[in-house]
Amino acid sequence: MAATNGHTVPKRTYKHPLDQLSAEEVTIARQAVLDARKSAVSAVRFRNVFANEPPKATLVKFLEAEHAGTLSPDTPRPARQARVQYDIVSDDRSHEYMESVIDVASGKEVDHQRVPKTLQQSLTIDEFREFSKVCVESDMFKKAVKELNLDEKFEIAIDPWPYGGPDVGEVAPRYTQGLCFAKLRNSNPDSNHYGFPLPIIPVMDTYKKEIIRIDRLATGGVDDGLNYGTAAKNVLAHCQPAEYVPELLDTPLRQDLKPLNVLQPDGPSFTVSDDSLIEWQKWRFRVGFTPRECAVLHDVHYDGRSVLYRLSLSEMTVPYGDPRPPFHRKQAFDFGDAGAGRAANNLALGCDCLGVIKYIDAMLVDTEGNPSVSKNVVCVHEQDNGIGWKHTNFRTSRAVVTRSRELVVQFIITLANYEYIFAYKFDQAGGITLETRATGIVSVVNIDEGKTSPYGNVVSPGAMAQNHQHIFAVRIDPAIDGHANTIFTEESLPVPMNPKTNPHGNGYEVVRKPVTKSTWIDASPFTNLTVKMANTNKINPISKRPVAYKFMPAPSQLILADPESIVAKRAAFAHHHVWVSKYVDGELWAGGPYTNQSQKEIGGVADMVARNDQVDDTDVVVWNVFGLTHNPRVEDWPVMPVEIHQLHFTPADFFERNPALDVPGSKNTASVEVGRTNTDCCDATNGNANGTVQDDPTSHLQGPPEENIPVAEVNGQH
Amino acid sequence: MAATNGHTVPKRTYKHPLDQLSAEEVTIARQAVLDARKSAVSAVRFRNVFANEPPKATLVKFLEAEHAGTLSPDTPRPARQARVQYDIVSDDRSHEYMESVIDVASGKEVDHQRVPKTLQQSLTIDEFREFSKVCVESDMFKKAVKELNLDEKFEIAIDPWPYGGPDVGEVAPRYTQGLCFAKLRNSNPDSNHYGFPLPIIPVMDTYKKEIIRIDRLATGGVDDGLNYGTAAKNVLAHCQPAEYVPELLDTPLRQDLKPLNVLQPDGPSFTVSDDSLIEWQKWRFRVGFTPRECAVLHDVHYDGRSVLYRLSLSEMTVPYGDPRPPFHRKQAFDFGDAGAGRAANNLALGCDCLGVIKYIDAMLVDTEGNPSVSKNVVCVHEQDNGIGWKHTNFRTSRAVVTRSRELVVQFIITLANYEYIFAYKFDQAGGITLETRATGIVSVVNIDEGKTSPYGNVVSPGAMAQNHQHIFAVRIDPAIDGHANTIFTEESLPVPMNPKTNPHGNGYEVVRKPVTKSTWIDASPFTNLTVKMANTNKINPISKRPVAYKFMPAPSQLILADPESIVAKRAAFAHHHVWVSKYVDGELWAGGPYTNQSQKEIGGVADMVARNDQVDDTDVVVWNVFGLTHNPRVEDWPVMPVEIHQLHFTPADFFERNPALDVPGSKNTASVEVGRTNTDCCDATNGNANGTVQDDPTSHLQGPPEENIPVAEVNGQH
Repeated sequence: MAATNGHTVPKRTYKHPLDQLSAEEVTIARQAVLDARKSAVSAVRFRNVFANEPPKATLVKFLEAEHAGTLSPDTPRPARQARVQYDIVSDDRSHEYMESVIDVASGKEVDHQRVPKTLQQSLTIDEFREFSKVCVESDMFKKAVKELNLDEKFEIAIDPWPYGGPDVGEVAPRYTQGLCFAKLRNSNPDSNHYGFPLPIIPVMDTYKKEIIRIDRLATGGVDDGLNYGTAAKNVLAHCQPAEYVPELLDTPLRQDLKPLNVLQPDGPSFTVSDDSLIEWQKWRFRVGFTPRECAVLHDVHYDGRSVLYRLSLSEMTVPYGDPRPPFHRKQAFDFGDAGAGRAANNLALGCDCLGVIKYIDAMLVDTEGNPSVSKNVVCVHEQDNGIGWKHTNFRTSRAVVTRSRELVVQFIITLANYEYIFAYKFDQAGGITLETRATGIVSVVNIDEGKTSPYGNVVSPGAMAQNHQHIFAVRIDPAIDGHANTIFTEESLPVPMNPKTNPHGNGYEVVRKPVTKSTWIDASPFTNLTVKMANTNKINPISKRPVAYKFMPAPSQLILADPESIVAKRAAFAHHHVWVSKYVDGELWAGGPYTNQSQKEIGGVADMVARNDQVDDTDVVVWNVFGLTHNPRVEDWPVMPVEIHQLHFTPADFFERNPALDVPGSKNTASVEVGRTNTDCCDATNGNANGTVQDDPTSHLQGPPEENIPVAEVNGQH
Repeated sequence: MAATNGHTVPKRTYKHPLDQLSAEEVTIARQAVLDARKSAVSAVRFRNVFANEPPKATLVKFLEAEHAGTLSPDTPRPARQARVQYDIVSDDRSHEYMESVIDVASGKEVDHQRVPKTLQQSLTIDEFREFSKVCVESDMFKKAVKELNLDEKFEIAIDPWPYGGPDVGEVAPRYTQGLCFAKLRNSNPDSNHYGFPLPIIPVMDTYKKEIIRIDRLATGGVDDGLNYGTAAKNVLAHCQPAEYVPELLDTPLRQDLKPLNVLQPDGPSFTVSDDSLIEWQKWRFRVGFTPRECAVLHDVHYDGRSVLYRLSLSEMTVPYGDPRPPFHRKQAFDFGDAGAGRAANNLALGCDCLGVIKYIDAMLVDTEGNPSVSKNVVCVHEQDNGIGWKHTNFRTSRAVVTRSRELVVQFIITLANYEYIFAYKFDQAGGITLETRATGIVSVVNIDEGKTSPYGNVVSPGAMAQNHQHIFAVRIDPAIDGHANTIFTEESLPVPMNPKTNPHGNGYEVVRKPVTKSTWIDASPFTNLTVKMANTNKINPISKRPVAYKFMPAPSQLILADPESIVAKRAAFAHHHVWVSKYVDGELWAGGPYTNQSQKEIGGVADMVARNDQVDDTDVVVWNVFGLTHNPRVEDWPVMPVEIHQLHFTPADFFERNPALDVPGSKNTASVEVGRTNTDCCDATNGNANGTVQDDPTSHLQGPPEENIPVAEVNGQH
């Protein structure tokens, strides 16, 4: 009995099409794959098992019925499917990458594909775990370490990294490279090893489990050029600890920070139901999860009107700018190589957010394909973001002021040394903000005592933090009052002074252009370039313009690598700020589905756009690329203060007035004035019934009130 | 006995040189001016009386003694002076603008200047008040209104505005122009009149108190050109109310927003002493106040080290982009024409900020020069800004996470229809953020029914919100470990792939250049242009680079008006993003001291920079200009949601590590998990003694721990 057939559907198919798989569904999918492959469990290595998003055409029909309130057991439902990514391991240890789609209702495999041998799957924790073991057994590695003459007070801590892009002409099987550091032995397990960088990078043949090469790293400075090697000396003699865990700090913690508590006595203003459905302040959306993207927003509505079909972080690349080989292969794709969902932190109450928190768990699998729940990977909470809108009538000194409350959907990922904090924020004025915070420990390499480098900054003795970039890609699948949308660019341009159209020279023009063919657009701040996602079939009755949402692409620096370099070619998406493509099911990856060890971007957004599709008044997808050129400061060490980037989506003639006009301006009676008691400050005379505040009218460009003029009087009819 | 003579100084001079004047000091200054001018009180109109900032050379000596802790009654103190701005009014009603400096210790006038007759002083509330009265007595005005055939249910509300820049060749005495609206009679005094714009602008000879002209406004649309007039018809027939006060809304307020309270059970972490001294989390600074700038930051130190001498908002211009005369004269200079301090709101507890608040009052004067206190014009409070830094050790899954606490110094100004919220924010990582929020009611003009306009957006029937820009100028007087500072630009530039310096093409170069002569710099986001304020005499021991603070000038659009237009010429500061000038006492105004009715910028930052002073390793001032091109949305009506701009100052090799490393990572025990009780969530097993959190190690790119490798083992010495 197929789940697409509405009759006598098994209970489990009642899960929402956008819900994660249940443990039961994972188990069904796992077994289906084992059956289909007729393989021994030992020969199958499971990578990911997750809900396969239904085709848009099917899902939209279902969602429309859901919004219309006409859902019933008889409503046709998209087939509940699992996507299974796994390897078949041969006796010669070689891996064949497979991908199957399982109909969980019937337990049958409905699709099966072999990943071309030229492509590499993302990294797994297994590969990480094996790295140290393989090193210990490697004479090549031991010899290299021996040459470093390390003191035996140290142990060696290895951070496995993706190999990056192989060089031109290099034939690279699956490799993993290891960034090596020394850690003080028998010390606190959280003593920070990054303060002791070792100038070697072992390269492991991942499946043969052999160290096939040790790359030696230059430790020189300004005058030493690219090929300066490592002198045979104790490279750690001048290095120093870089502790950050409180019990190891050389200074006491601040004692003068008093508690600031966020209390919500009546609980949160949001509800989470049906596993994935969140409703808050006229917003209604689903939070999905995938191993690659972590939290994904689906079917975003405001006040019953559709705004977005899907919003997600698609890719991110971190190329390092140190030209000394092999540092050109320090280039991570944190979504494609690692997977944000699999790297997500398990969040803790009172640490990662304040107030009343709802946590969402992730369903993942172990390498044998068994369900494995990662707890609290996404948190949902409210916060205050200051004043939302305010006006004071200078005639009466009556001030009406509202706070801006936000709903935050947050997750945090750790990739070896580094952290990213991602948050989708909803506000009461119809706005959505995607916030990125970069934190964690910057990547350092060993540098000789007393030297400085043109390729980075010495942040601790012997530790040089290399200049690098973080370039993010956000995928925006708009549904502005429906799926037939048109993208416009809007620029504000000067008009030369002329008697006919601009006699006094103050005028400027606003030029709007529709995007008709799939293409890229670069940020243009000096023309105030704004991207509008509009529905030309729906006109705002007030302004007579198409309803729209807009965003201003941040004019951040794009990838600096030479366009002809492998580093640049494998991140084609990082060459422009905005991409506009025609929607195709499954096209989710700006950098292409397979980034690990790629030499160029394949099937990424550049390829999508190259189809030259017609994209106006149709189902269109917009991609925003923004970056952060990070030339480290000493202040970024040992753990860097967050560096924040925000992308704002705001309604532009989507509504018929400020959607936050009905937000109560009520006075927060819990606030206290210094030197007064709580009772004083809540004196009702400070506020009034409708929750607004009568200001003391002494502001010197405001009151006392002036007289308005009765029309009758000026008409002289009295 | 002069205050500069340390002996037997009268008590009042013990006030800190950066404190505001006391009422007593204002009264002394007022009397001194009356005595010096030998004028009858009736002939003197006082504009401003405020503390005259001591010359830097003098003040720095005093501050150095203060920081050294060597202050005593015998320490020479800067003379305590009042600056008095006033008019002498002749029998013919003409005003002569005067400025006096009074030594309040001796009560003597020490300086006196006449403002050249070609310049106009800023606006006063008196001029505003008189406008309606003069209109009622004007036949010209009555005739114009009569022609509009307004219904007698209306009364006329007039917003007096600065006249703007007179046209080329126009000889303009002191003028005020009035933007006219209709308001429903006998309705709520806070019924919003901006929904009923009238197409006339009366122009008043300010001192003769005569309406000398009525400018007729075009009400046409796209096809009507510039000279389309106003047909004799009821121009309000198609207009609609635009209420925002809760009791007049046509919809009920949201009922589902639950309280979010910020509680600080142990009180705030900051102290305010000595009237103006604020200390918080290693920060120490003074909050000053002037009628023109509102809150000003002085003598900003972190952990005993000097960072800034003075930080202030200097100017702001708002040119409108509607080319139809007389709209080219809609160009306000909100600091020079009006005065942010005099336009500052009187803030109310629980409305303008949450938590524990300290308010600061402003000492102003009435037109007779008597002290008049404006209550609560500045608020000081703390807030949580999310995660400050975080790292999870993937080997142990130990997460260390700290919150970022901020100290906020905020003020809000109202200028007729519009509001600005300004905040100086200090963080625990040595950063300072200057935040601007634009809100209030956009300026609208009448437009015929059913028409749209190229010059703005119809936001309510009959009301077209004109396209405009807000261009701000911030004055930064750095004192990076002292006053001899050097400004650097730092750009990240691509390096073509080449065998010698960039064999694989991933390398890029960071180019730093000192600014040696006073000049301007434009934002350059695509080269990641960063401005560093450095002290080349003080080298960071870790990085070996000069200690510095940096900011990235926002690449916002600059003034769009034709450079040859009066609108552009009177705002020369608005033509570049960054200006670097040599410090000169009293040079505080980016747009020049007198902006009202100016036809070009005189004595502004462009003139300062034109001196071509040497500015490296000396006392240098940096000016940052940023803007907001505001093409209104329907959602901006009737009161717009805040539009936020932030300018970040961050330490760059100023410290020897992350200054927030000693911020306790303690868990907030007041937070609650949905569906759990407070007791559950505060279960000590969720946290540990040192306040960090042991995460559940199931995140799939983290634990379980891998083995580190003992050096002895790889050395094979066992």
